[in-house]
Amino acid sequence: MVTMRDVAERANVSIATVSFVINGTKRVAPETRARIEAAIQELNYRRNVVARALASSRTRILALLHPDLESKPNATVIQFVMGAAHGARERGYDLVLWPVNDDEQMSHLLAGGLVDGVLLMEVQIRDARVARLLASRVPFALIGRTEDDDLPYVDIDFATTIHQAVEHLRGHGHERVALVAQQADATTEPGRIMRVESAYLDAIAPLGHPPAVIRVESTSAGGRAAARRLHDDFPEVTAVVLVNEGAAAGLAKGTRALGRQVPGDLSIISAATTRELGEMIEPSLTVMAAPAAELGRMAADALVDRLEGAEEAPPQVLIPCALVPGESVGPPPPR
Amino acid sequence: MVTMRDVAERANVSIATVSFVINGTKRVAPETRARIEAAIQELNYRRNVVARALASSRTRILALLHPDLESKPNATVIQFVMGAAHGARERGYDLVLWPVNDDEQMSHLLAGGLVDGVLLMEVQIRDARVARLLASRVPFALIGRTEDDDLPYVDIDFATTIHQAVEHLRGHGHERVALVAQQADATTEPGRIMRVESAYLDAIAPLGHPPAVIRVESTSAGGRAAARRLHDDFPEVTAVVLVNEGAAAGLAKGTRALGRQVPGDLSIISAATTRELGEMIEPSLTVMAAPAAELGRMAADALVDRLEGAEEAPPQVLIPCALVPGESVGPPPPR
Repeated sequence: MVTMRDVAERANVSIATVSFVINGTKRVAPETRARIEAAIQELNYRRNVVARALASSRTRILALLHPDLESKPNATVIQFVMGAAHGARERGYDLVLWPVNDDEQMSHLLAGGLVDGVLLMEVQIRDARVARLLASRVPFALIGRTEDDDLPYVDIDFATTIHQAVEHLRGHGHERVALVAQQADATTEPGRIMRVESAYLDAIAPLGHPPAVIRVESTSAGGRAAARRLHDDFPEVTAVVLVNEGAAAGLAKGTRALGRQVPGDLSIISAATTRELGEMIEPSLTVMAAPAAELGRMAADALVDRLEGAEEAPPQVLIPCALVPGESVGPPPPR
Repeated sequence: MVTMRDVAERANVSIATVSFVINGTKRVAPETRARIEAAIQELNYRRNVVARALASSRTRILALLHPDLESKPNATVIQFVMGAAHGARERGYDLVLWPVNDDEQMSHLLAGGLVDGVLLMEVQIRDARVARLLASRVPFALIGRTEDDDLPYVDIDFATTIHQAVEHLRGHGHERVALVAQQADATTEPGRIMRVESAYLDAIAPLGHPPAVIRVESTSAGGRAAARRLHDDFPEVTAVVLVNEGAAAGLAKGTRALGRQVPGDLSIISAATTRELGEMIEPSLTVMAAPAAELGRMAADALVDRLEGAEEAPPQVLIPCALVPGESVGPPPPR
């Protein structure tokens, strides 16, 4: 078995220097590092990470378990994933991606022992994967929430976010505010849909008008359908809070296609999205920017805290979105 | 040391059944699986992945090494990353994210022995990280290309893509076609910028007019700056090929803000982007859709082929973008 001493001899350096490079604990000159790396490869000295894992029963690897995200090029997702990867690396952990929905494959991966803990994305209100994780006893943290509020999670603070959005619109004189939310498909019901709708009902209650909730699919076509339904079914509505990133452009386009101006006839706030997406649309949308990178980082952090015993109670973190004014909010049209 | 037999006894099943679950090689009833998983955790049987790694000097983990992508919520990036994760999983490998630019941290990770191979993203034309990878002797594949065409890579076929975009515009009667490309910042020069510009020069050569190349930063402001420069410096240009995803919305908005219609006064094709991004913009952009998920998958595949000795020559794969017509291309304005 090749040892660190063999590597040191081959590279003609001290064992301490080899250790500095392997553990990243001290600066080593680039040429020396290159020599050590070459020696490691020549001797096939690959055992430190593996040996440490054997000795400690810890691999220092976390998994991000998520459904297929390829077909949803959602602007906040990449920020979230990168935030989680950064957060893990800052604590000395690696993050693997597990693009898995299938129950059997999930078992296989959990039983494999590769990871110390799991971050679960796109959590549903009743999520069979959570039951699986609990049964497997692998520590985890949720991104989003189920019905059960006792589990560790990080999530957007939808109550505060929607409340601030409605307040911003009230400040401009709006009294009839609609919600355009996401349509759940047959099998999934993201927890955020329920929480968003209940936050909206709370926020508009002081206005004393009936609610106007429209659920559409998260696409341009969905956004155009929402514009039509607002026009046909809710003509009294002068402002919209949109919590459906994929429908934002379609809503703005569809509203104009019906001869209505944004914000002249309809003001729009897009919540839980990126400022970059808001800027792409014409007029630039006023957004409540999702703290996606921060959520990713805090999720990794919370999980590592759990693994390393720093936290007794399950970590539960809520972060509101931040208002970024664009050009899509103005006073309501004169009656 | 806990063995598979201990797990089997605790779960009251055969060793073979434990092995089916751990290796994912055969269907096992959900209740049985749950019992086995619980036993694995109770006994802290975490050694199979680790033990296999020790025995074979293989961890079956790949790394995706990339610069900070948090600040670039680029629509193609998430598709690429997910494609790579899927591709790795299909071959029985795990993909870890290494959000690292720093040379020293890169050494540390490479020397750690965690991964069997590396996928390198956002490759520069002269890329110090490639020299590092060669020195470390860790097998790798590039997404994009350096100056050196002997390395293994997968990349967009920019020559074919730009050629098809120019042909599409010629088919509508355009003769004066500009390129809006990405501005390299002080330290980086992505290989694609050079390849895109040279493909553009080849494609417009038969038209017999001087080239019009504008490089702007990859933001809405960059797109608006490009619209102004086209208006002020290249009034004869009637069509644009844009290879700068982040500037697409700004170019469309900025062109209209200058009183010019799209496509009435200026036709636009956005290359190497997603159809979803094209749909967000008004008018919907005609795009050449980047094969991002496919590139990610093929990159993982090519790397695994190398690791498993299936390939002798370094794999080199080029895939063109696919034309998706929108509403941003029409005939040129009458003189």
